[in-house]
Amino acid sequence: MANTTRIVTLLSDFGLRDHYVAAMKGVLLNLNPGLTLVDISHQIPPQDVFTGAFTLWQAYGCFPAGTIHVAVVDPGVGTARRAIILSAGAQWFVAPDNGILSYIFDREESWAAYEITADHYFRKPVSSTFHGRDVFAPVAGWLSHDIPADKFGPQLTDPVLLKLPVLTRVKDALIQAAVLAIDGFGNIVTNLKPEDLPVYSAPGTRSCRILAAQKEIAGFYRTFSEGKPGEIFVVPGSSGYLEIVMRQGSAAAALNLAPGALIGVILN
Amino acid sequence: MANTTRIVTLLSDFGLRDHYVAAMKGVLLNLNPGLTLVDISHQIPPQDVFTGAFTLWQAYGCFPAGTIHVAVVDPGVGTARRAIILSAGAQWFVAPDNGILSYIFDREESWAAYEITADHYFRKPVSSTFHGRDVFAPVAGWLSHDIPADKFGPQLTDPVLLKLPVLTRVKDALIQAAVLAIDGFGNIVTNLKPEDLPVYSAPGTRSCRILAAQKEIAGFYRTFSEGKPGEIFVVPGSSGYLEIVMRQGSAAAALNLAPGALIGVILN
Amino acid sequence: MANTTRIVTLLSDFGLRDHYVAAMKGVLLNLNPGLTLVDISHQIPPQDVFTGAFTLWQAYGCFPAGTIHVAVVDPGVGTARRAIILSAGAQWFVAPDNGILSYIFDREESWAAYEITADHYFRKPVSSTFHGRDVFAPVAGWLSHDIPADKFGPQLTDPVLLKLPVLTRVKDALIQAAVLAIDGFGNIVTNLKPEDLPVYSAPGTRSCRILAAQKEIAGFYRTFSEGKPGEIFVVPGSSGYLEIVMRQGSAAAALNLAPGALIGVILN
Repeated sequence: MANTTRIVTLLSDFGLRDHYVAAMKGVLLNLNPGLTLVDISHQIPPQDVFTGAFTLWQAYGCFPAGTIHVAVVDPGVGTARRAIILSAGAQWFVAPDNGILSYIFDREESWAAYEITADHYFRKPVSSTFHGRDVFAPVAGWLSHDIPADKFGPQLTDPVLLKLPVLTRVKDALIQAAVLAIDGFGNIVTNLKPEDLPVYSAPGTRSCRILAAQKEIAGFYRTFSEGKPGEIFVVPGSSGYLEIVMRQGSAAAALNLAPGALIGVILN
Repeated sequence: MANTTRIVTLLSDFGLRDHYVAAMKGVLLNLNPGLTLVDISHQIPPQDVFTGAFTLWQAYGCFPAGTIHVAVVDPGVGTARRAIILSAGAQWFVAPDNGILSYIFDREESWAAYEITADHYFRKPVSSTFHGRDVFAPVAGWLSHDIPADKFGPQLTDPVLLKLPVLTRVKDALIQAAVLAIDGFGNIVTNLKPEDLPVYSAPGTRSCRILAAQKEIAGFYRTFSEGKPGEIFVVPGSSGYLEIVMRQGSAAAALNLAPGALIGVILN
Repeated sequence: MANTTRIVTLLSDFGLRDHYVAAMKGVLLNLNPGLTLVDISHQIPPQDVFTGAFTLWQAYGCFPAGTIHVAVVDPGVGTARRAIILSAGAQWFVAPDNGILSYIFDREESWAAYEITADHYFRKPVSSTFHGRDVFAPVAGWLSHDIPADKFGPQLTDPVLLKLPVLTRVKDALIQAAVLAIDGFGNIVTNLKPEDLPVYSAPGTRSCRILAAQKEIAGFYRTFSEGKPGEIFVVPGSSGYLEIVMRQGSAAAALNLAPGALIGVILN
């Protein structure tokens, strides 16, 4: 068995307290002791498939070609929900077919997906509650030995996709946007890009305001340091999206906003 | 010095905020830069040797032969408590001799244990409060170079063992069981196996109920998805034991149960 | 590109929930897939440069020569604050020039530092909020290929240094000391060494008391086990400093002390 230096990342809602993540890593190293294992996050809120999808999306582009991403936020474990291998962007993804790969499907122009059915690759007995250990980790372990994806099952062309938040131009001067994520600092990641707002794309041409949680935000800066401590304002974030932030504080706590919340942009 | 690809796992109650875990990893990599390090958990409740023992037990079977497990939940650090190397199940364990390896001794038919006394393998000076860095990590690092276990000290045949929770048949129709663990989802892991309950082993022959925290539980399912949201019910868990769970919720919070709590099973 | 086994450690205030740490690791592995990555801590309190400096100091000495430490607690990200490469103690440090390396400068007799200006080593586009991913990780990745430090920018001789807490002899029999850190167990790490107190350096010659949070502490022991449960007392800690601790409890919670708090030592 080749002792390759393939990278496998893990993302889950298992937390770091229990043995769950280590069990998956043990299974992976049992199949391929040469793997480099990297945690993306195991603190996805329990069963929050959208936040899992967002977090995976934000991380995967930084990894080298050939990386295998195992993403297990799996409220349907033990049911008939399918398991999936996805090849996209020169990387691999192994996950329940529940929408957790939605942003990968959305961003990558070409992809091939396979339903995992070949249960001789599974760890036996397969529990009804922990497919991370019994299905996804072993499949990723075998995949790291360059077993062709179609050996794991038939092609799948109708993956489950989440309805991703989009911008809606409600009126000429009103855009409805949404909160994609709240990070650990309390920064609010929106689905607005700098080019969506004249204040960034064509400074001086048109002012604008953001309405979030019934508050009006009118500070549009380039860096955190331009904001005053305690001020809530907007900056271009590291994900390419605008973030509503508070310098030395949590904008999310101040505004009481959560992922999925709608926000308005008034251009005038 | 051979640059081997040995795996060393770490389990502790050190948490992830301080430098403690990293200090142990630095000591290990100093002795053997080729090691693959895997965290089992560092969020064992402070000084909770039983939860450490349970968590190690649940994880170790997934790891390949030759893995070295370093387990440091060590309320007796600095006292005369012994330090131990255990060879069992084709794996190695390095730990304080305080019962944290109890489930390994319980499950593995043959084993050999050694008291760690050869202090020329220790990191000097040896602190009185951090043997993870000064004793256990360096011993594991040297062990990874295949230094024979008996070079670290004499054989030890009387390890400290925790009193592990057992099933007691109180009457013909009443079994006393116990809570082994509460996981991060709030699932309650019991020490009952599916074969202990007719409802699983011989469906239709005999009904049963579980009494936990003065509540009666009568839902016995195979998967989470059979339970109704908010219902408290029983499913076979991934560890081979029955778990008391709540779909999309925390059964442990609802029942206010903790590890060690007794539960009753009424067969009738 | 050589596939070396260099070690890179990461320290930040990014937490473990979001994708930030994984993004840095992806960038590092993209540049050098053979790296061994070790987390020191990602739970430094947000923007707490001093606690970052303390934690890095406590860990770095355990790592082998050649290790590259990436430390990103960076309240000034996006401003004109400099970025720095430091060679000291046969190890490397890559960080914002904001004092996070203060203890390294303080402890290592000889060092060489460089301002990072060669932006062709950066990940493009460089965001204004996440230099961990866009500046520090790529610089560390290239550095791991033994690119000479002076290729990244000119030498820097005036690093930003934090004012580190020192002992002050207020009177012959009174020393003013300080709290350096509170660990996850609630142990209070002071900047007093055992040799600073006669009770440890010359037992029997002179008694002493510590005043902390208006309480008097007079128990000076060698190990935790000498203290009574619930007692607040002093022991030599694993960092070489005296710690104020409570057996089976949190001294920091009992005394309500935080890093930077002053404490008095009365020798009489």
